[in-house]
Amino acid sequence: MRMRYKPWAEDYLKSHPELVDMDGSHARHISDWFDKDQEIYIEIGSGMGQFITTLAGQNPDINFISLEREKSVVVNILDKVKELGLTNIKLICNDALELNEYFKDGEIDRIYLNFSDPWPKKRHTKRRLTYHTFLALYKQVLKEDGELHFKTDNRGLFAYSLESMSQFGMYFTKLNLNLHQEDDEDNIETEYERKFSDKGSRIYRMEAKFHKNL
Amino acid sequence: MRMRYKPWAEDYLKSHPELVDMDGSHARHISDWFDKDQEIYIEIGSGMGQFITTLAGQNPDINFISLEREKSVVVNILDKVKELGLTNIKLICNDALELNEYFKDGEIDRIYLNFSDPWPKKRHTKRRLTYHTFLALYKQVLKEDGELHFKTDNRGLFAYSLESMSQFGMYFTKLNLNLHQEDDEDNIETEYERKFSDKGSRIYRMEAKFHKNL
Repeated sequence: MRMRYKPWAEDYLKSHPELVDMDGSHARHISDWFDKDQEIYIEIGSGMGQFITTLAGQNPDINFISLEREKSVVVNILDKVKELGLTNIKLICNDALELNEYFKDGEIDRIYLNFSDPWPKKRHTKRRLTYHTFLALYKQVLKEDGELHFKTDNRGLFAYSLESMSQFGMYFTKLNLNLHQEDDEDNIETEYERKFSDKGSRIYRMEAKFHKNL
Repeated sequence: MRMRYKPWAEDYLKSHPELVDMDGSHARHISDWFDKDQEIYIEIGSGMGQFITTLAGQNPDINFISLEREKSVVVNILDKVKELGLTNIKLICNDALELNEYFKDGEIDRIYLNFSDPWPKKRHTKRRLTYHTFLALYKQVLKEDGELHFKTDNRGLFAYSLESMSQFGMYFTKLNLNLHQEDDEDNIETEYERKFSDKGSRIYRMEAKFHKNL
């Protein structure tokens, strides 16, 4: 998500070490950071934070991590977490490629990708969060039966992801090719999603797992 | 495809044993039926026959089979084959469930499913041509690296098929979520496809294979 550069973001985030990890200080000890020892769901790229903070508010019995690279973006999520007084969500300011530096193998129960950057140019394929190098990371940190939940308004990225994920040995347990036309009462909208859905764009969604013997 | 009942269809089809198998007489010896020994592509459910006859005309170096249950439908395909004087296509009038009665294991190079009946009701799931019992048949008769090509305008059937096929251990090599908006010069339209695309419906398409070690 593009956002205005905030030169004060780094100092602000550093002033909240109880909520934001800026330097990997909680790497490999993420569970200890939370009050309660319970399942961990992570969102990679959290935009304005609407999705993950809503989910965290609704599910106090789950621990949430927002992994987001852009400091100016993390600021918005931090503000929401403070405002809502949520104690079951922590923020990591780093790149998705560093995922396995923070989490032990099989530590995570679910990964969310919402409206990830589509990187439409062929030469940028490697940057898509469903490129096989990322899928390998997800497989590593997810429990054996862990889930990947993916939502986008970008048709090209969704089609690419179905190819890439199935080729990697993943399978789909729930699939919507026009989410807002289908019944899904559980859907939590992101700010981005509302904007695009209001314009008449389709929202695509899937839930996926890894085949055990591939 | 629903079509007007033709009481004379059976007699007419029986009068062309060189093109139509009505009684399984070529079962397990399909290759011998053709003039040339070459790759076999099969379409399951051929509607008006536009797709398979066009493809057969364009590809004399491939043998084609149209497997279609409804006699009244086979009549239309037979008429097209005769009109075009095609020698590399044969018609089988039987149910898809009988596929492995006609073909030896690994004998087929490619299977086409075009605008198959969506059977939208949950209690009819088993009848969908991408239900796992059918996928098991396809895997049996396809070569190890054989392909399934699937095209539909039915969003629900496409989503279901992506789930069912990936769960069965298939992966997608090419995927279009809005075929007529994307570049695909090779696309051969069916009558049904033209009608629905003209009405503004999306056409969904995929090419898929089976994971070897699943």
